[in-house]
Amino acid sequence: MNDLIIAGRHFHSRLLVGTGKFSSNAAMVAAMEGSGSEIVTVALRRVDIDNPDDSMLSHIDRERYLLLPNTSGARDAQEAVRLARLARAAGCEPWVKLEVTPDPYYLLPDPIETLKAAEILVKEGFVVLPYINADPVLAKHLQEVGTATVMPLGAPIGTNRGLRTRDQIAIIIEQAIVPVVVDAGLGAPSHAAEAMELGADAVLVNTALAVARDPGAMGKAFKKGVEAGREAFLAGLGEQREKAEASSPLTGFLRDK
Amino acid sequence: MNDLIIAGRHFHSRLLVGTGKFSSNAAMVAAMEGSGSEIVTVALRRVDIDNPDDSMLSHIDRERYLLLPNTSGARDAQEAVRLARLARAAGCEPWVKLEVTPDPYYLLPDPIETLKAAEILVKEGFVVLPYINADPVLAKHLQEVGTATVMPLGAPIGTNRGLRTRDQIAIIIEQAIVPVVVDAGLGAPSHAAEAMELGADAVLVNTALAVARDPGAMGKAFKKGVEAGREAFLAGLGEQREKAEASSPLTGFLRDK
Amino acid sequence: MNDLIIAGRHFHSRLLVGTGKFSSNAAMVAAMEGSGSEIVTVALRRVDIDNPDDSMLSHIDRERYLLLPNTSGARDAQEAVRLARLARAAGCEPWVKLEVTPDPYYLLPDPIETLKAAEILVKEGFVVLPYINADPVLAKHLQEVGTATVMPLGAPIGTNRGLRTRDQIAIIIEQAIVPVVVDAGLGAPSHAAEAMELGADAVLVNTALAVARDPGAMGKAFKKGVEAGREAFLAGLGEQREKAEASSPLTGFLRDK
Amino acid sequence: MNDLIIAGRHFHSRLLVGTGKFSSNAAMVAAMEGSGSEIVTVALRRVDIDNPDDSMLSHIDRERYLLLPNTSGARDAQEAVRLARLARAAGCEPWVKLEVTPDPYYLLPDPIETLKAAEILVKEGFVVLPYINADPVLAKHLQEVGTATVMPLGAPIGTNRGLRTRDQIAIIIEQAIVPVVVDAGLGAPSHAAEAMELGADAVLVNTALAVARDPGAMGKAFKKGVEAGREAFLAGLGEQREKAEASSPLTGFLRDK
Repeated sequence: MNDLIIAGRHFHSRLLVGTGKFSSNAAMVAAMEGSGSEIVTVALRRVDIDNPDDSMLSHIDRERYLLLPNTSGARDAQEAVRLARLARAAGCEPWVKLEVTPDPYYLLPDPIETLKAAEILVKEGFVVLPYINADPVLAKHLQEVGTATVMPLGAPIGTNRGLRTRDQIAIIIEQAIVPVVVDAGLGAPSHAAEAMELGADAVLVNTALAVARDPGAMGKAFKKGVEAGREAFLAGLGEQREKAEASSPLTGFLRDK
Repeated sequence: MNDLIIAGRHFHSRLLVGTGKFSSNAAMVAAMEGSGSEIVTVALRRVDIDNPDDSMLSHIDRERYLLLPNTSGARDAQEAVRLARLARAAGCEPWVKLEVTPDPYYLLPDPIETLKAAEILVKEGFVVLPYINADPVLAKHLQEVGTATVMPLGAPIGTNRGLRTRDQIAIIIEQAIVPVVVDAGLGAPSHAAEAMELGADAVLVNTALAVARDPGAMGKAFKKGVEAGREAFLAGLGEQREKAEASSPLTGFLRDK
Repeated sequence: MNDLIIAGRHFHSRLLVGTGKFSSNAAMVAAMEGSGSEIVTVALRRVDIDNPDDSMLSHIDRERYLLLPNTSGARDAQEAVRLARLARAAGCEPWVKLEVTPDPYYLLPDPIETLKAAEILVKEGFVVLPYINADPVLAKHLQEVGTATVMPLGAPIGTNRGLRTRDQIAIIIEQAIVPVVVDAGLGAPSHAAEAMELGADAVLVNTALAVARDPGAMGKAFKKGVEAGREAFLAGLGEQREKAEASSPLTGFLRDK
Repeated sequence: MNDLIIAGRHFHSRLLVGTGKFSSNAAMVAAMEGSGSEIVTVALRRVDIDNPDDSMLSHIDRERYLLLPNTSGARDAQEAVRLARLARAAGCEPWVKLEVTPDPYYLLPDPIETLKAAEILVKEGFVVLPYINADPVLAKHLQEVGTATVMPLGAPIGTNRGLRTRDQIAIIIEQAIVPVVVDAGLGAPSHAAEAMELGADAVLVNTALAVARDPGAMGKAFKKGVEAGREAFLAGLGEQREKAEASSPLTGFLRDK
């Protein structure tokens, strides 16, 4: 009932994880397991989908995890579309995390090329999850062409800086008709919880797990952070106030004596 | 092994809860149970400790929770000391959450009177947990006179504004030789997680539970938030970075073709 | 030497002002004069450029201020282009502040339609100053098609929230080859100063002046804020540090006695 | 009329400067002159007040600047009181910036010892300006014993981190009956402006000037920042809003056609 539903598919977990930058496949698997995630994104260029012996893919239990190919490294719509088609041709399900990042330094997404690629891929039957800057109008355009989610960034990839785009993400959530998945920049469970408290439907985490001293334990910590934020959102958070208010309204018997 | 230890006593839970401002005793009990807390603070003036029929006390299972009397409402050291003695005389264990708040508006603690009362109460054998402004030098003085914790505020009581005193609390944690319990102002699980990620030993929450639409569910959410933050602290969080770093370092096979 | 140069034209002032929402024309003129601004933006729809008797225009000294027509209210590229052409046909200089805001609620700019309109208008010989979300990749695209500035928002129009998009604006500045003018959301001189300290070339302010109790005095305050930030940027700000460092390294003669 | 008045003495400038950490006396003098300050604080231990040849003192024009001796380096009330008396005995006016900082690492002030020293010095006829943590209750105690100002810190000395204690300082200002001078941590003119916009009466800056590439120019920038903030405070800042509001309410002639 409280599942995350993307393109009609149900997920219990609201934490998606990435597979980059881990020090070993064992660390990656530990983080995935700890996180309780059901969706795992892999860079198409990093894996050889055709090859059953590909060392990374062989570590991911595809009964347990939905493999979500991403177009990481694509610099324009054309490259992104080509990568997505390759993945489907190799037998992947037609889901794609769309990333178009012409700038090699900050890896920020291109709004124009992302929308262009999304339009093509949706028409070809893909379930498209686009990674975008936290731009509410762009988010609307993408939903209008039929993307299955929008994935605004909290901060540039790999920075661990948290929900630096909070105001914009709040607007995206308010206006969204598909799930909003906050992607990139979330460096600690408190960041993930904050996004969920704001009303995000899910978050995607990668670097924070990969660079942790103990990736498996960090996966568990993020799992709890995401659940904490979601549950608080549902339980109805109080408002912030300017003035203090006693939590102990007193009868004052002492002073009256 | 990873217990919270205060004055030699072990606790599994690192979340303390307050009992003020709940709409009903049932809501209060639901929040306490959801939170998994083992320490519950009550305003001495609000309860009648002598009276077995006191309606609030009768709802708190004293096998399960350590009842931590607080001196809420005391305006100076003398009043606080008197309240603490009354509680002990009535059969409470000699633990006291020391609150001295002369200002009725923001309920901010008095550093001078708090230190004075702490010194007296420690000498009388109390286990003293003082509520203080996030002042690292005051925190040191209190530890020197023998308090069992220090409890710096994150923001004024009841504001739900979160860890607004983050820089000072980080210094208090760095220099502490007793547990640091962040008290007041934490309005969401993300706030509690942030305090724990910073290295706090525990947090105390009241208003955020009492004003939630569903206090029981909010108690559970905070429980997870605290655990998430603690586990992330232990698992070793990565540093924040200025620049993006790809989570998918690529082989670049596509472009090279 | 230290002028703001846009499309080859020099300006001493780095503070642009808007003309909306003032309670009276007198208040508007007072704010303009106080601000020392040399560029004043007007909504094309609000003024009747053909009409020499238009009450607002008659209050703006066009010897002193460059009138910068904006396309406020345009919902797509076509409307924006039409408005810009109307302004030129009416005898305005071919400068245009390009605003395409399909969302009537938050008035956030449309990245797709803004780029489309910019491309057309640049080809037609306009000097184009586009209002955009703080999106570094979009900013690059606009510069590539030849806009004279980029004008990323600090926060949604009229909110007075300040530089909420600080991280993104820092990247835009770092990568820019044209002046970066921070537009929208700056509600206090400290916000304007912060943008300039970060390296922005100029800022545009409207609401903060219009809603001030004394718009003329607020114009002066913003003038100083902008200059303060600019001068500090040029004078070389020190870095932020985690740890305190004494500003008074002592010889310690007292203690040694 | 709009002067800063401390202990009955009027000042036009609301920017106090410190004299530590400059690379040369020439840099220090340039910063002082640029800043327009009328109050200059010097560490008693660093200068030899008795000695007319002291190289630093000989650079400070005592017709132009009120020399405000500070007790920097004092670790307790006794040391601070001794330093203040030495200064007066050497012919200084009986003004003292009271600093008691037992912690050599963060140089944070001691609330207990500061209050103790303040009480003694006020009784001895000193004009006492105490440097304190941003603790509203402590600020009240100091005003009750008769200090001429309170000087809460924005962030630890030398960090340039800005107004990190904003919430507490707002409360101190609201409750103050003497001028509030924000001291320590202000690293940029925007920080100084923010403090003044909040209603502070003045700020003290040192490190930000001393470490600037061009201290004289930075002094000027801070002067403008302080004035900008003060003037904005007087001109009546608008409120922050959650939602955007058009600065150009339109007649909509275009769309209606």
